[in-house]
Formats: sequence, structure tokens, C-alpha cells
Amino acid sequence: MSYRKILLNESEKPSHWYNIVADMPNKPQPPLNPKTMQPAGPDDLSPIFPMGLIQQEVSAEKYIEIPDEVQDIYNIWRPSPLYRARGLEKLLDAPVKIYYKYEGVSPSGSHKPNTAVPQAYYNKQEGVKKIVTETGAGQWGTALAFACGQLGLECEVYMVRISYDQKPYRKIMMNTFGANVHPSPSNRTQAGRNILAEDPDSPGSLGIAISEAIEMAVADETHKYALGSVLNHVLLHQTVIGQEAEKQLEMAGDYPDVIIAPLGGGSNFAGIAFPFIGKNITEGRKTRCIAVEPASCPKLTQGEFMYDYGDNAGYTPLLPMYTLGHNFRPAAIHAGGLRYHGASVLCSQLLKDNLIEAVALQQLECFEAGIKFARSEGIIAAPEATHAVAQVIREAEQAKKEGREKTILFNMCGHGFVDMKAYEDYFAGALSDHTFTGTQLKDSLEEVRALQP
Amino acid sequence: MSYRKILLNESEKPSHWYNIVADMPNKPQPPLNPKTMQPAGPDDLSPIFPMGLIQQEVSAEKYIEIPDEVQDIYNIWRPSPLYRARGLEKLLDAPVKIYYKYEGVSPSGSHKPNTAVPQAYYNKQEGVKKIVTETGAGQWGTALAFACGQLGLECEVYMVRISYDQKPYRKIMMNTFGANVHPSPSNRTQAGRNILAEDPDSPGSLGIAISEAIEMAVADETHKYALGSVLNHVLLHQTVIGQEAEKQLEMAGDYPDVIIAPLGGGSNFAGIAFPFIGKNITEGRKTRCIAVEPASCPKLTQGEFMYDYGDNAGYTPLLPMYTLGHNFRPAAIHAGGLRYHGASVLCSQLLKDNLIEAVALQQLECFEAGIKFARSEGIIAAPEATHAVAQVIREAEQAKKEGREKTILFNMCGHGFVDMKAYEDYFAGALSDHTFTGTQLKDSLEEVRALQP
Repeated sequence: MSYRKILLNESEKPSHWYNIVADMPNKPQPPLNPKTMQPAGPDDLSPIFPMGLIQQEVSAEKYIEIPDEVQDIYNIWRPSPLYRARGLEKLLDAPVKIYYKYEGVSPSGSHKPNTAVPQAYYNKQEGVKKIVTETGAGQWGTALAFACGQLGLECEVYMVRISYDQKPYRKIMMNTFGANVHPSPSNRTQAGRNILAEDPDSPGSLGIAISEAIEMAVADETHKYALGSVLNHVLLHQTVIGQEAEKQLEMAGDYPDVIIAPLGGGSNFAGIAFPFIGKNITEGRKTRCIAVEPASCPKLTQGEFMYDYGDNAGYTPLLPMYTLGHNFRPAAIHAGGLRYHGASVLCSQLLKDNLIEAVALQQLECFEAGIKFARSEGIIAAPEATHAVAQVIREAEQAKKEGREKTILFNMCGHGFVDMKAYEDYFAGALSDHTFTGTQLKDSLEEVRALQP
Repeated sequence: MSYRKILLNESEKPSHWYNIVADMPNKPQPPLNPKTMQPAGPDDLSPIFPMGLIQQEVSAEKYIEIPDEVQDIYNIWRPSPLYRARGLEKLLDAPVKIYYKYEGVSPSGSHKPNTAVPQAYYNKQEGVKKIVTETGAGQWGTALAFACGQLGLECEVYMVRISYDQKPYRKIMMNTFGANVHPSPSNRTQAGRNILAEDPDSPGSLGIAISEAIEMAVADETHKYALGSVLNHVLLHQTVIGQEAEKQLEMAGDYPDVIIAPLGGGSNFAGIAFPFIGKNITEGRKTRCIAVEPASCPKLTQGEFMYDYGDNAGYTPLLPMYTLGHNFRPAAIHAGGLRYHGASVLCSQLLKDNLIEAVALQQLECFEAGIKFARSEGIIAAPEATHAVAQVIREAEQAKKEGREKTILFNMCGHGFVDMKAYEDYFAGALSDHTFTGTQLKDSLEEVRALQP
């Protein structure tokens, strides 16, 4: 009987995170302090992040050791299984071998705890008592709530009001893990009160929630802030995914020709692809690494590489990245984790240097792929994750057309048990594909061009 | 670093299901045909079940081989991990080692696919094209939808109308796996039309849904019916859980003093406990096996052992079991899987013979235990599964009081990602404990006494 999955024991987990900066032929340009337009240093970040994470943010060391206490908590769900997609392969009937890492086995159901746990750990190391963050649909907030609970830290989450009201399940998951969740805008911060004074019924936005979280974090020196994607240290922590996959593929006697992952901010993609991109650079391997973005938020394929704020509110340093403009407002697709205006600095530099590829897909094709995946593999994927499946199907069909064999690896970054509303809308025919109005991208990009040094 | 989980490879799965009937000192009494009051034989069951399953239902063979095609689908999630509950142990600070099997890793998120897959398989073997079933909250329907999808069978599910309307996520999961789901009562059957004629707004009931499913199943000889608990063959299929656990505990150098599992119909409890009860009987082991039922549906602790219908509608043969009466209507607790009026024939006989124990717990204690479990172990448990955790905590506290060491094994039979409403109600203080009115149990039991041979 053919195996379906390859497991590793806890003792076979990677001992270090892999830092791709060490291997990049062109190092990323520095972030800039928007007031001085000078490179932002550790001091710019220390009010909101602990020094342990800031050191990782600016590190050029190739490997950074994973602390024992983090490994112990990783053991709750790591190493994650590597699946051989026998069911999907049979369905597609193409000359491809398809493997996927399944990150839905984590406590919050996605890859996010891979970074939430070390972030909570380094905060705790420096005496932080409470971590404050924002969350949109709730994946990141759930992961941080879990991590803080494990390490005995308080966790306070500002959740965009409209999600708080419309998607209560994620909020209750955060409560269950022990976090306090507030709808944003709230009366707890000046930023929130200002918004509510103008519009008591404000539905909120990620930008407002970030403002509230940062305001609360800087107000007390035992409080810090945390971010679930985009930053270098976040991408670093996710590299356990790709390192495990490499070991598991070796056990299967395989190596990937193509790696596929969705890209929102970039941590999901980085997690599975960076260790293999490193091998491309240092060992001359030729694995194609494809980032999949939604057609409604296509920063990699239609954005511009320039300095922009990492957040909608303009709180962060200016980051060199592919962006649609920090004021770009993507359509309200169900793949909430992919609705981010820019790509992380590291992913952006790699794309600029042609070390990765990018493709933008429409949501109907992605949901169709998700249904095929559920029926053939037994896993109901998060809407974000269906983007990877859709591209896998494209690659398989291409291979069939060309009669060329291919080994594909992708990141099944989360399950969709809390996202069934998305599938409901799909079955009801309530979803459509996306085309931009003529000026939508142009205007938001124009604004950012004016910020360049 | 101490390990947290013990994994098995696919090749280490049990090769056979374990049939406890072979080892029982007192064999269960036969089911009776309610019309003739004579033992019901295979002919009574053949209109609704395939012969492969009927043979298992009446088998006295100790081991029944698991077919290769079933094993191949089991490989999607089996063997399930055995966890050492390090977090919970630390929290409880008692002289206990706690292990649990985690069945939430299955495609539908509970132990139900363990039997759904072989049921679909034996139906397919005999040329069945479509399986019809009923579902309450949806766990069983989801499992059967998945199994039928894997084996290329059609699946039609009658879902109690009030759940269909109030809990749409499970319905959409079934659709995603490819099943057709109808709210019950429906216009598709005579049984449904009769109800709707009297009450067009009927919220439905499990009894009505069973009537509809059986009516559709017997109407076409290529259609059959399937049941997710109670019957001998269902309990048989679940024994993969306990057999895997035994092997995993052996790897840990341990053997359980106490086994704990929730009991609704009995398949969850049977799955983990039967292989160990077999060792108690044949090898003189002394493992205590405790079935946990909800205080609002206490058939094992307050029911009577007598012949009763297996369903509310009176379609099944009369079964010898602990029952509250087939017309008993339990309170609408969130642990929907435990709201069944009787206990399976096999579990009932074992309790009668003092080979297992039973305890009834209130729901507030169970949710409190569920919160502790989520925060310490990172798994949000289904409301049914919290009943096991609550009893584990009781056993640990008892061990602490007595200063006696204990090794506890329990079945974490499913995750609660689709049950967050239950936790929401708990946090909102909207749940309460249950006490019976004086006559509630008495009346429903009285009615059944009149049915005895």
C-alpha cells in the first residue's frame, strides 16, 4: 500500500531557524524613519518590540537557534505532517507528484503559531507582562492568544469591529485561549475615541486596530506589540516549515521542482520556500518558487517596488517593497489573510532579483480548487490556502500538456473549519471574480510615489 | 526535553478490528423483532444494511480483518497521535500521568470517520450506489459525506430542520465533501409530508429524520441506510483507537490504570476502551473503564436495563440496553452527540456485568474543564469531549487527595472549531446545570416497561 503522509518525531525538528538574508545576493535596503528619512535602527523599534526580536529583525546570521522552551511548545503540533496528495494526483491524472505540508494541525489551525510562540517567548524573556495586537478576521489573534496562554503572558487583541460582530467564532476562540478581545474602534484608546466621536457606528479597519494596539503597547513599559507577518523575524520563525519539508521529502527520496504558497504579507510563502531558495542560491538547485496572490490584491504582479508604510495608518518605518499603496483598499474577499497592500521586504527583494515568481488568481478558480481538494484529500482548506491548490492544479495541467514530469510541494497553511461561510457563499453563487476600475490602482500608487526618498 | 506526543507510522496501524463479543463472559441478549417478539436475524436488517455489515453485527469472531481499501483511506488521518498531557498535568499538579488519543485530526474532526469509511466500503462492495442517513448537529453526516466521497458513492443526509437552520456550517461541510443535505421534515418522503401537513413549521427531530432516511433507503434496492453509533459493527470499527493507544503506550512504557471516554450511543467509549476491557477479561488486567454521560441524559446511571427501541420513531428492533425510554427528550445541551436515550447493547451488557463504570456530569463542570484543557493543551475540545476531561480532572484530584499514582488514558474524540457557539454561551453565562422534574424519567421509563417480552 502506498503511504499518504510522512511524519517526523519531535526530536527530528529543526534546531535552528534559517535566515535567508545571509544567502541573498542583494541584501534588502534598510527601512527608513519617515521623519528623518534615515535608516531606521533598533532604537526606532524598541518602544514596541523586545530587543530579542529586534536583533533577529536586523540579523545577518544564517542560522538562529530555537530556544528549548519554544521547542517544547512547538511539540504540541510540530513537526507537521508532509502529505503525498494521492487523492488529488489521481483526480488530476497528470505526470506530477504532489506533496503538501499541513499546518492546519496547529492549535489555532494555521501556520501563525510558528511565530506567535517565539514572539511571546522573547517578550517574556525581557519581562514583558502583556502583548497587545490587532487582528482582522482573527487567525493571528488566535495564534497569539494561544502562545501567550502557554507562556503565562496577558494578551489583548483589538479586533476590527465588523469582523468582531460578523465572525464571532474567532473571538470566542481567543477568549477560550485566555485573551481579552475588544472591538475596534474602542473607547479604550485616544485613537479609538477620536474615530467614535466622528462615527459612533464605525465598522473599524485594520489601520484603526493597529493604532489602538500600538497606543496601548507604548503606554506601559511592561506592554509590547506584536505583528503576525511581513517583518523579517516573523518570516524567519516560519522557516521551520520548509526545513521539516526538506527532511520529509528526503525520506521520500524526492526534491521539489516547484514550490507554491499563498502570499499575504509573505510569512506563509517564506516559511515553506526560503530554505529551498537558499539551496537554489548556494547549491545551484533550480526549484521554482511561486507566490500566489489574489487578483483583487495583486501587489507582486501589479504593484510597484518602492518605499511604503507597512500599515494603513502610517505608524511603521518606510519599507522597501512591492506595494499597491498603503491606502489601497482591497475587495472584501474571504481570503482575509491575503488582503494586505504590500509584500514583506524579503519577498519583495527576492522577486526584484528574479529569485521567486508570482501569479495572481481569481477567487472562483480558488474555491473550485478548494472543493476538489476537500473531496480528494479530505481536508477543507482555508480560503487563503485554496490559492495554492489552484496554482498546483495549473502546474499539473501544464505538465500534462507538455508531457513533463514534475514534483510539486505546496503549503496547506490552514484549515477552513471556521471559514465555512466562505464556502456557503461560493455554493450560493454569491462570489464573483474581480476586475479593477481604471484608476483604483493608479491613485493609491501615485500617493506612495510622493513618499520616496 | 520531554516528549508530548507519540506517533505511529501508517504501516503500524492495527490490521484487524477487535470484536469484544468473543471475550464477553455474558453474551448480549438478542435484539427482538417487535412484531413477533422473536430474535431479529439478518433478514430483519437486510433491507437497510448490506450483508457485509450485518455479518459483522452478529459476528462472534474475535478479530475481523480491515480491508486494504479501508486502510488506504484511514491513512489520511490514522494512526491518530497519542498525547501525553504535559500542560494539563502541570496545571493539575497531581501524581498522575495523563495520556489522550486525539481523534480531532480526522477529516470531519471527530472519531466518526473510523466507521463511516468501512460502512461506505461494504455498501460499495455489494453494489450500493447511494447511502442515506440522518444527522442531528452534523458530525455523523459530515463523516459519512467524506467517506462516500472517497469511495465514489452518493450520500444523502436528512438534517434536523432546526440544526439545518441554526448551524449551517456543518451542512456546508457536508456539501463541500459532496453530499446532498435536506432539512427534515422534507417534502421528499411520505413521513416528511405527513409531518409538514400537520405543522408546516416543524423544527424536526432525530426521529423524523431517521424515518425519512429509512424511507428513502428502502425505496430503491441500490440505496442503503447507515447509522453512526449504537450498533455492534459501529463499535467494532472504532476499536482501532484503543488498539493504537495500546501500542503507543507500550512505546512510552506505560499501561493505563483508568480509561475515560464520553458515552452518547457508545462508539466513542467502545473505541478506546474495548481492547483494554478485553485484556481485563482475558489477562486479568485491572484497568477501570469509565463512561461519562451528561447529567441531562443519564441512561447509564439513572436508566433501566430493558428492551427498548434504538430510535425515537420505533423503527428498529428492540434492543436490550440501559435506557431512559425512547420517548425521553433530553435538554438541548450543546453536547448533541451525548443526547441519546439509550446505551449500545454491548456497553449496556458490560455495565450490567460490572465490567465498566459510569458517571454523569453537569455541563458547567464540563465546559470549565474544556477551558482548562484549551489553555493547557492548545486544543479546543468538542462539548462532548469536555465530559472526558472533566472526569480526568476528578480522577486526578482524587489521586492527589489519596497520594496514589495513576496513569489515565482518555479519548479526546473531536475538536470544537465548529462548536464555538457552545463556548460563547458558556462565557455569556447562558448555560446552567440540569435537574429533572419529578416525573420526567419515570414517565418515559414506564412506557418502555410495557414493551418487555
